[in-house]
Amino acid sequence: MKVGIVGANGYSGVELIRLLQQHPYVTIEKIVSHSTHGKNILELYPHLYGVNEMILEKWNLDELSNLDFVFFATPSGVSKDIIPPLLDKGVTCIDLSGDFRLKNAGDYETWYKKTSAPAEYLQKATYGLSEVYRDKIKQAKLIANPGCFPTATLLGLLPALKKQIIHANTIHVDAKTGVSGAGRNANLTNLFTEINENIRAYKVGEHQHIPEIEQVISDISGEQVPITFITHLIPINRGIMCTMYADLVEQVTTEEVHQIYKDMYKDEMFIRIRPIGEWPTTKEVMGSNFCDIGVMVNRRTNKLIIISVIDNLVKGAAGQAMQNMNIINGWEEHIGLNNSPLYP
Amino acid sequence: MKVGIVGANGYSGVELIRLLQQHPYVTIEKIVSHSTHGKNILELYPHLYGVNEMILEKWNLDELSNLDFVFFATPSGVSKDIIPPLLDKGVTCIDLSGDFRLKNAGDYETWYKKTSAPAEYLQKATYGLSEVYRDKIKQAKLIANPGCFPTATLLGLLPALKKQIIHANTIHVDAKTGVSGAGRNANLTNLFTEINENIRAYKVGEHQHIPEIEQVISDISGEQVPITFITHLIPINRGIMCTMYADLVEQVTTEEVHQIYKDMYKDEMFIRIRPIGEWPTTKEVMGSNFCDIGVMVNRRTNKLIIISVIDNLVKGAAGQAMQNMNIINGWEEHIGLNNSPLYP
Amino acid sequence: MKVGIVGANGYSGVELIRLLQQHPYVTIEKIVSHSTHGKNILELYPHLYGVNEMILEKWNLDELSNLDFVFFATPSGVSKDIIPPLLDKGVTCIDLSGDFRLKNAGDYETWYKKTSAPAEYLQKATYGLSEVYRDKIKQAKLIANPGCFPTATLLGLLPALKKQIIHANTIHVDAKTGVSGAGRNANLTNLFTEINENIRAYKVGEHQHIPEIEQVISDISGEQVPITFITHLIPINRGIMCTMYADLVEQVTTEEVHQIYKDMYKDEMFIRIRPIGEWPTTKEVMGSNFCDIGVMVNRRTNKLIIISVIDNLVKGAAGQAMQNMNIINGWEEHIGLNNSPLYP
Amino acid sequence: MKVGIVGANGYSGVELIRLLQQHPYVTIEKIVSHSTHGKNILELYPHLYGVNEMILEKWNLDELSNLDFVFFATPSGVSKDIIPPLLDKGVTCIDLSGDFRLKNAGDYETWYKKTSAPAEYLQKATYGLSEVYRDKIKQAKLIANPGCFPTATLLGLLPALKKQIIHANTIHVDAKTGVSGAGRNANLTNLFTEINENIRAYKVGEHQHIPEIEQVISDISGEQVPITFITHLIPINRGIMCTMYADLVEQVTTEEVHQIYKDMYKDEMFIRIRPIGEWPTTKEVMGSNFCDIGVMVNRRTNKLIIISVIDNLVKGAAGQAMQNMNIINGWEEHIGLNNSPLYP
Repeated sequence: MKVGIVGANGYSGVELIRLLQQHPYVTIEKIVSHSTHGKNILELYPHLYGVNEMILEKWNLDELSNLDFVFFATPSGVSKDIIPPLLDKGVTCIDLSGDFRLKNAGDYETWYKKTSAPAEYLQKATYGLSEVYRDKIKQAKLIANPGCFPTATLLGLLPALKKQIIHANTIHVDAKTGVSGAGRNANLTNLFTEINENIRAYKVGEHQHIPEIEQVISDISGEQVPITFITHLIPINRGIMCTMYADLVEQVTTEEVHQIYKDMYKDEMFIRIRPIGEWPTTKEVMGSNFCDIGVMVNRRTNKLIIISVIDNLVKGAAGQAMQNMNIINGWEEHIGLNNSPLYP
Repeated sequence: MKVGIVGANGYSGVELIRLLQQHPYVTIEKIVSHSTHGKNILELYPHLYGVNEMILEKWNLDELSNLDFVFFATPSGVSKDIIPPLLDKGVTCIDLSGDFRLKNAGDYETWYKKTSAPAEYLQKATYGLSEVYRDKIKQAKLIANPGCFPTATLLGLLPALKKQIIHANTIHVDAKTGVSGAGRNANLTNLFTEINENIRAYKVGEHQHIPEIEQVISDISGEQVPITFITHLIPINRGIMCTMYADLVEQVTTEEVHQIYKDMYKDEMFIRIRPIGEWPTTKEVMGSNFCDIGVMVNRRTNKLIIISVIDNLVKGAAGQAMQNMNIINGWEEHIGLNNSPLYP
Repeated sequence: MKVGIVGANGYSGVELIRLLQQHPYVTIEKIVSHSTHGKNILELYPHLYGVNEMILEKWNLDELSNLDFVFFATPSGVSKDIIPPLLDKGVTCIDLSGDFRLKNAGDYETWYKKTSAPAEYLQKATYGLSEVYRDKIKQAKLIANPGCFPTATLLGLLPALKKQIIHANTIHVDAKTGVSGAGRNANLTNLFTEINENIRAYKVGEHQHIPEIEQVISDISGEQVPITFITHLIPINRGIMCTMYADLVEQVTTEEVHQIYKDMYKDEMFIRIRPIGEWPTTKEVMGSNFCDIGVMVNRRTNKLIIISVIDNLVKGAAGQAMQNMNIINGWEEHIGLNNSPLYP
Repeated sequence: MKVGIVGANGYSGVELIRLLQQHPYVTIEKIVSHSTHGKNILELYPHLYGVNEMILEKWNLDELSNLDFVFFATPSGVSKDIIPPLLDKGVTCIDLSGDFRLKNAGDYETWYKKTSAPAEYLQKATYGLSEVYRDKIKQAKLIANPGCFPTATLLGLLPALKKQIIHANTIHVDAKTGVSGAGRNANLTNLFTEINENIRAYKVGEHQHIPEIEQVISDISGEQVPITFITHLIPINRGIMCTMYADLVEQVTTEEVHQIYKDMYKDEMFIRIRPIGEWPTTKEVMGSNFCDIGVMVNRRTNKLIIISVIDNLVKGAAGQAMQNMNIINGWEEHIGLNNSPLYP
């Protein structure tokens, strides 16, 4: 199968290259970049010597139309314009940006502060949270691949929401992320000297992943509730941890909640519910498509505590995108994705 | 003035050395260590060449009795036995461990899983949160110096609690700490390879700083409420960030809350209320005795968001201890503590 | 093919698990540990949930004898006693420790300060620097897998030595390594707080890899010369960089040397000679079996400068071990080893 | 005394602020920035709240002329134009850039690839390596403050050179530096994601500090020799380690060399010769003006090995600049500089 990557010069793009290279049924035919076309990808990423030595090309609708699958790892505001014509030519598109995630165009404009994609295409898009929307994904021609924070948050919350053991309107998510999520853009804020030996909260109350999370919570629980969600930058390259708190609807034990989680995800190879008393760390999923989850009922406060971790570039971006490609093609989901985390 | 440091071989002990060395009115007369006595401190900390080259001694009640002030930077469960006789000999003691912080002996035994100090000495101890209990500290002979997390948490919460703008029973504290808080003990968990490129939650629901925080909240607000408090280990050496969330009692603006915080701390040189829209980072207080605080009202969720940061070894340990010594002696509080943060 | 791993609880052991799991022709039948047998490997390495959930067993000669291949990732001084009887039972052994690398028993005892393996087994051992001793490796029953520093150093030096463009007796190697090379042992020196934000030289003039490097230089160049070699600990988990300097025998250009390197390694898939003017960084090989090399002739000083990088746990340990297994079995060398570096 | 800082918005500039603030005889009267004038320094460096809240101003010769001392922490190529007129007005200038370090204008143009300062001003400048040129510094009106690498390198080499125990033409310097030396400039290369978990060699054979080091070696030893010098970027913020190797002129013991070093620096409070067998690490000088040095004679190779470490922003920049100001004014050298390293 022939695939292309648009925005191949960013960290998610280059992670797509890493993963697609190890997929046995796929050939990367084109890599596209707006800002660096004409260069060999090696000039930007010398770790790819002998792995992938392709030339970054300009966006060209006709040429891309010959491919089976195109991944978009572009900044927000780009794919909304270029996906529609490509989709109309019959190419399956997986968008890793936020352009097609929110069903309501107004929400996009409020949170992203940009013009939205045409409403009809927003409706065509399937939200690609693989474990939750697998049936819809199978039929999809356009996947809105979830954001990194929504992936970690929602996989952690959904069993509790589905089984109605927490009040959705009491959810707090305290999220911590590595720096690769910010992309490869030159700015003072993300210099080594500024990030190293530092912890920083950012986009407090304004993160564009908030409406995305709320949209899915509403879809699952039927409740339209605002969540409390704050993100922090941590001096690591890869990894997201979401620490989540919510009030319990009624008294329940850690054992009971743990069993609910185990049951709900029992057929999911990428979701690992950790034993009671054990909490996942980000390094334990690094480089892999796993999402690890720990749960505990805190009796003193009558709250459910959930901690979930992912590698933001894999399950939070390129890995889940490839998992969705596998689903669409009816392939086994782990193909190209069954490597162990890299530890330490 | 002659001072001694018991437990001088740990990170808080060596930080006391750094700060006391730059205090103009003080001489370090004795440094004491249970596990490494007989060694020159240089064998453990070669950065002290030319700064402090004293021999670590055994604990000796009589010798310590000749000092004016003794700081205890010992693991929990040690000072509860050795402080009482020294105090009885008239020496002022500042305990950086948790042994005298909880007024209720049963709480200590529940959370620390050790025998408590004698109840009469618990009553004699003054909780050394300098900005809050300054008047009591002035008279104190025994200071229970606050824990690092309680310091950051309480300084961040107190204006809101005192002015009753939040419901105490809705407080969530998501705390992140550097690794120096774990002390200098050989264990697999804190190896560089295990911490680096990793985020880890620990002591979830069991942290011994929880009752300490609740005790002060209760003292301030009159409400005995359990708080939600979770700690995370971050790959930095120094620094604590507490991200705090609480429900507002009634509608209030960010500007109003900000003004309350500015007013409450207007005479405090070590507390810096950051401008609206700006959030403090841990590096911005590194090496200093500052506690920086940012606040915001989140209209969507009707919550107050507070972020506070300290250097856990300074304001969270040795710095606040020295500040308390200054208060007791009637000296200006900033003496020996007015260095700028080290940035970057 | 059935393989076993002795010393599976260390970082090299667990890296062998990662790589052998992705090898299509191999099954891990036994994992052995002296200090932690009886435990599930998950208790030590929870990142392995769903990947490998075996029980660590005690060393048992009879049981191990049923395997085809056994890897030893044991501390020095262990395999010298347990490999000989296993080898005698016909099992092919790959030793990742230093016990069989030095041909001269006296050298081992001088540098390792331990009793050597029996001299006859030292003679049976083949030094497993894959690209250099491939022909001998094909016939080997006992591989002394090279040390991490010797691998990076020798692959960088050999073309220049073979073509006699440098004076062997002028070689300086300034080596920098990540911390995983020190293994997973609890000690103060390798705590996060001590390593982070620090650079440290160690074993200056005493590193046990020195005689190993000199032995191969002597084998290649015919010259028995002492080299200058110093190692530094850098706050990263994985990666070695060797910066090497040597006097040129006669005037030669960077272009000529570069061509010699390209030619010598033209059929080697794991060795990447970087273009002139470009220097490899450790992250560019992280998680992969690559050794990247840059060269330059410095006219002012008439020296050849060579920089080589590897991932110490892959090409410097488990990866090269598996490459050697592939060579012995007549399989393609890249099987199980063709994943891209993990970047960033 | 009234001082000004030009280029106060960079890391060296802000370090000058930190140190000058703690100097009892000095007031910072003006801070100047070309790119960010008009802003409060707090907008760039919020760690300075309550410490220094000055407005960055435009360069203005007349206004600066009213000051006693002006420090230039500007990029190379700036101070060469603006120092001469200020100097002519009688203001003492300390230049932390490279513009006045090389006596030979042609060398500057070769290595910096920029037009040199006027030759007469190059002659007026005194090279400010405090411990070596103290007598000249006392009379100086214009100080060319040494580069960070030359400081660490030269302080480590000089005793051996002065006592002629090494051959100057065999010196190898393998230098490792933290990232703050690269300044606060937005570029891809110094993003956290690119530096973290990485080691990188840079400016191989081209570093502009090479001629500066050679100039002083020549001044001390009388020999004009090219040195081998390579720099590496290490994922730490502060710190330089220079590992140095040189051939011994005649046989000498470690004890003898160690004594020479102790003797040569016996009156220097900022130079700490570490005991035999102990090697300094960068963290052991962090935040301080110390230069720590370890030495060893390697019998096998007949070489002297020297390792020196400094904090590049203190002894390698702002600290030495302030030390020079103290020398010029006849004040004790440690004033404002006697704080302990920050450990850990």
